Amino acid sequence: MTSSGPAAICIDWGTSSFRAYLVGVGGTIIERVESARGILTIAKGEHEDVLAHFIGGWLTSARALPILMSGMIGARQGWVEAPYAPCPAGLREIAASIVTVGARTFGAIGLVPGVSALDRNGAPDVMRGEETQILGALAALDRVDGTFVLPGTHSKWARVEAGRIVSFATYMTGEVFSALKDHTILGRLMEAGPGDEEGFAEGVRAASRLERPGDVLHAIFMTRTLGLFDRLGSGQLSDYLSGLLIGAELLSGARGAQGAIVIGSPALTARYCAAGAILGLALQPSPEDCAPLGQLALLAHWRPA
Amino acid sequence: MTSSGPAAICIDWGTSSFRAYLVGVGGTIIERVESARGILTIAKGEHEDVLAHFIGGWLTSARALPILMSGMIGARQGWVEAPYAPCPAGLREIAASIVTVGARTFGAIGLVPGVSALDRNGAPDVMRGEETQILGALAALDRVDGTFVLPGTHSKWARVEAGRIVSFATYMTGEVFSALKDHTILGRLMEAGPGDEEGFAEGVRAASRLERPGDVLHAIFMTRTLGLFDRLGSGQLSDYLSGLLIGAELLSGARGAQGAIVIGSPALTARYCAAGAILGLALQPSPEDCAPLGQLALLAHWRPA
Repeated sequence: MTSSGPAAICIDWGTSSFRAYLVGVGGTIIERVESARGILTIAKGEHEDVLAHFIGGWLTSARALPILMSGMIGARQGWVEAPYAPCPAGLREIAASIVTVGARTFGAIGLVPGVSALDRNGAPDVMRGEETQILGALAALDRVDGTFVLPGTHSKWARVEAGRIVSFATYMTGEVFSALKDHTILGRLMEAGPGDEEGFAEGVRAASRLERPGDVLHAIFMTRTLGLFDRLGSGQLSDYLSGLLIGAELLSGARGAQGAIVIGSPALTARYCAAGAILGLALQPSPEDCAPLGQLALLAHWRPA
Repeated sequence: MTSSGPAAICIDWGTSSFRAYLVGVGGTIIERVESARGILTIAKGEHEDVLAHFIGGWLTSARALPILMSGMIGARQGWVEAPYAPCPAGLREIAASIVTVGARTFGAIGLVPGVSALDRNGAPDVMRGEETQILGALAALDRVDGTFVLPGTHSKWARVEAGRIVSFATYMTGEVFSALKDHTILGRLMEAGPGDEEGFAEGVRAASRLERPGDVLHAIFMTRTLGLFDRLGSGQLSDYLSGLLIGAELLSGARGAQGAIVIGSPALTARYCAAGAILGLALQPSPEDCAPLGQLALLAHWRPA
């Protein structure tokens, strides 16, 4: 299935990062570019210039390649808005909602839409970029169902059935951790350290003892008091808080967490798998580079207007 | 029981506020001073000068009055550290742990200690200042037991039996609200408004639908999506988040919330009582100015060294 020539250019353009992949037919990554030029750093009208800066070289040396982009680049504050595809959404539904962006240098670029869902109480939820990573993980693992976890600033928990995302929920775990650490009293006693496994495990165990939803508003305060009473060292407190929040997320998402597939950076994936092990939940890391794999799968279903 | 002459000077000196009361024998407040000069604004060595600035006038016109202080002024970062009295702690135990501060201008000033407790998992918790307000509410209401809620940056839920605080828990509700509003994506769509009762009620109802501890990490994200999908107006989002967090706190503290007594500012007390009503929990506002009432009760048990 592999080929020596490039088949597509896949771009995963998020809030705080830009990643571009020159991809071969079978999904081989021939070249890649990574940068911190996420959409928050780019003014309206500058997107094409930034893109040319990073991937212009790939076009001059090759025939016209199809280009797909996914992530927050399709949000209202991105390049062009690509309206959400509602759940259930799989390859066909998402490919049918790809928006075409006309670009002077590049011709038509496909912009993958995000996906929206209603939770069981009828409240809306949204993702942008993660849907493409999930499609890539399905392709890489040759699966059509399962629970997928994408940890991060806004963690996503998605349920896939028959190749379609049928429901999902966002957890603000990463952003809540940062806000608590940097902007509340909890950060005062914390000292940066190399990452403390025992502090993290203690936080996960504390999460497992929570009973009611509001208990977490109490439990986080222990990050301070365990430090005040020298029950944890100042270098352990940040990991304790991280373990507490990730543990709470896992136990909430745990309606389907057993055997869930984690899609994320190796470090964060390892952290989620470690928390799962403490809680008796076997999580499975996904292959890396799911975004270009998902875009490649979408390309096969995309019929540009 | 009342008298026309002053009987004591009571000072409630917290992190962000200073309050002093010239109190008559029966608890009548003869004069009061309020200022934003909390302990965070005061350098080591300056406390006596600040105190003299605010209450110096009360001493020149009267005989030497006993002076008590409670609140964060007794913390490590305050004037002098007053070690925590462990639970169970009532008037006798707390009065026995009052620390005497020698002051050039004032003679001996009594510094009321905070109270510490272990939660049911053995994790430590602490309060400073709230114990004195609880003692004041007990005196004002002529009670020796009950559940007391002190809402705020760090809400406290305390259980009192036979006149002693037997257990309590801190909820970081107020500080979490501020951190989420000011330092996460949730604040982006919010517009300041006059306070929206329907948005608040919607948040409380959302809290009542939470099932697991980690669910709150998901539910807060709805503050954004309900705004994105125009299900709530931008002027309602802040109240929605407030209702969600206060509702979660009440339902967690609700192990004993039915009939609990709320000690706080009239506005915050009204908000907690409104949330309780939505959740079927009857909360009862306490009288105001519980801090000087508590100090007056402690004075009767205080034997300065």
